[in-house]
Amino acid sequence: MLHPVQQLLGSDAYIYQFKINAKSAFGGDKWAWHQDYLAWRLADGLPAPRQVNVGVFLDDVTEFNGPVIFLPGSHRNGLVREGRKDTAKSDQHLDPDDISLTTGQLAQLVSRHGMSSPKGPAGSLVFFSPEIVHGSAPNMSPFARRLLIATYNDAANLPQPSGQARPAHVVCRDTEPLLALDVPFSESLEPLTA
Amino acid sequence: MLHPVQQLLGSDAYIYQFKINAKSAFGGDKWAWHQDYLAWRLADGLPAPRQVNVGVFLDDVTEFNGPVIFLPGSHRNGLVREGRKDTAKSDQHLDPDDISLTTGQLAQLVSRHGMSSPKGPAGSLVFFSPEIVHGSAPNMSPFARRLLIATYNDAANLPQPSGQARPAHVVCRDTEPLLALDVPFSESLEPLTA
Repeated sequence: MLHPVQQLLGSDAYIYQFKINAKSAFGGDKWAWHQDYLAWRLADGLPAPRQVNVGVFLDDVTEFNGPVIFLPGSHRNGLVREGRKDTAKSDQHLDPDDISLTTGQLAQLVSRHGMSSPKGPAGSLVFFSPEIVHGSAPNMSPFARRLLIATYNDAANLPQPSGQARPAHVVCRDTEPLLALDVPFSESLEPLTA
Repeated sequence: MLHPVQQLLGSDAYIYQFKINAKSAFGGDKWAWHQDYLAWRLADGLPAPRQVNVGVFLDDVTEFNGPVIFLPGSHRNGLVREGRKDTAKSDQHLDPDDISLTTGQLAQLVSRHGMSSPKGPAGSLVFFSPEIVHGSAPNMSPFARRLLIATYNDAANLPQPSGQARPAHVVCRDTEPLLALDVPFSESLEPLTA
């Protein structure tokens, strides 16, 4: 997964967060619509939205087990600011109200961008921006929907928490640029136009 | 809608329930998996599952606004009995736990029948059995999902509540067989094989 991430960022990268969002059968509440980067800026003092999320389907993802829903292209204008509470703070427990989009904002964004939810067999990958608006419904099915999310960050964009840093199991401490073992990273890589 | 209902029932019919399930934008909680007829037998003393539900989409229905999800063919074996609480009673407020299927029952049923959720533009119709297992997810979208459900009952299958009947706005009192104005009902109609 590293080369595409480096291509998208046009820079070296390290793993900023590595987590499994495990929606159990008949469970896993819905996630309110949000943009990841706002949470990371508030909680970790992340200077810029220079991340790439890679979602790895650990289970088959269908319309019935709570797939992530994206508003395609909604990352292109950066963070939605209008009407949002935007108090800087460094909590370990972010209040969802601080990062959720309002009903009015969503209605506008969906009218402009539509909605799309990638589905596919276990092993499929989804690359997405830290600024894309997304959410997900509960898992209505009797089958788990486990999603591994590896978040890569530009190695020159290190967190600058204003207070105590979040724990190492939430925000990875090893910020050494990753190197693929098989193929050397080409210095000539340029960011792709998204 | 009356002729197809009469064809499916092979009998005269009247309107037993007439309701709008209005899932508001970003709202309308999920409905647990259930079979309608169990609720009606418990609450209204309905003798037999001789109903046809007709769902009328008042809004476009998509994968994102809480469509009804069916287990196709799950009505063919009647009510799921194994492991179910089945105490006869005549409440006006049914406890969802009394009619919801368990996780284990659902896992088996979905493995056998799969899941399917009809979608389409406003004005589309879905005919479904009172014994088919179904549920629905919340509405994740900024658009309402209003569903009109007309439930027709065999005119010879009148409710026999053990206590006080549910109010007229819940269970219709007019049990006169319906007649279509334009085309007379043919006595020769036979039930379709489902």
